[in-house]
Amino acid sequence: MAKTSKNATNSTTQVRIGGVGGQGIVLAGRLLGMAAALFDGKEAVCTQSYGPEARGGASRADVVISDEPVDYPYVIKADILAVLFQEAYTRFRDRLSPGAILIADSILVQPFPGEEENVYTLPATKIAEELGGRMVANIVMLGYLVEKTGVISHESLVQAIRASVKPQHIDIDLKALDAGISYARSEVAV
Amino acid sequence: MAKTSKNATNSTTQVRIGGVGGQGIVLAGRLLGMAAALFDGKEAVCTQSYGPEARGGASRADVVISDEPVDYPYVIKADILAVLFQEAYTRFRDRLSPGAILIADSILVQPFPGEEENVYTLPATKIAEELGGRMVANIVMLGYLVEKTGVISHESLVQAIRASVKPQHIDIDLKALDAGISYARSEVAV
Repeated sequence: MAKTSKNATNSTTQVRIGGVGGQGIVLAGRLLGMAAALFDGKEAVCTQSYGPEARGGASRADVVISDEPVDYPYVIKADILAVLFQEAYTRFRDRLSPGAILIADSILVQPFPGEEENVYTLPATKIAEELGGRMVANIVMLGYLVEKTGVISHESLVQAIRASVKPQHIDIDLKALDAGISYARSEVAV
Repeated sequence: MAKTSKNATNSTTQVRIGGVGGQGIVLAGRLLGMAAALFDGKEAVCTQSYGPEARGGASRADVVISDEPVDYPYVIKADILAVLFQEAYTRFRDRLSPGAILIADSILVQPFPGEEENVYTLPATKIAEELGGRMVANIVMLGYLVEKTGVISHESLVQAIRASVKPQHIDIDLKALDAGISYARSEVAV
């Protein structure tokens, strides 16, 4: 877990975030897209599909980030897949591109042993609970994702949080972001 | 303004909601998509694009609602365009399909005289302020939109609100929804 793998050497990065309703999956996607476009000078499109899988309680957000306008906003093969719930992992793992990065909650998700190439895990929900509530697990995961992948800058994510979450939530969200970043950096150091 | 025009006799309806940041445009799109898919048995995809226009402060949400899986989630020509801010109207009006329905905040938006075919206006933001806060103007507008267009059922929208907004916001959101529906019905009666 000490290596940092940078994906997306081409100009487009496909990110999928998955979980269940209530985990703030769509907000995480929005923050990523806003950060990329509003503060990192890229183009971004966020898509949420509601259909049979949503009726089963699954939640996902797709974010396509590019240096150019995005023609096709669906995630065909995810360069980065972040999952906070087991069913989201089992459902979406066939969408991983070769060399993709899988990020998973280490307590709520058990990746199939030996079947994934680049797996990074962190106890996002546990860290969030220690910070004051599991509703910020999505932000902990985002901080970790950004530190591990470099897909956007930390600073842009801070700005997106300041610009879009409710004033009373900014402090805890920024703490959650820092916690995710710190967890990623501590792994690099050991 | 007494007529109710039903659009979308084919199986796919393209809806665009536009405004500025802070008006809850994306939430409105999500509620519409969730209501359609989770409770009305349709398929729905919500898309938010972040690019040059978002950097200018504009906010929009596209929702494509269909009886079948949605292949292409971008709104090419809106069957329904709902705008809560003048700039969203001027920017998006060229995307109206022939026979489309335009819904606009009657105080914040001034449609070009004589240039739109089916215009419906309501003081969504003023109604919201009377209910306790302009942040529910998006929900007032949704209630009105659903009553005027019939694109989804009221009941599914109530369920989407109950399922996805924070518990402390459910009451005011349901009041805002009722206010939008009542406003639409009062127009039909006069």
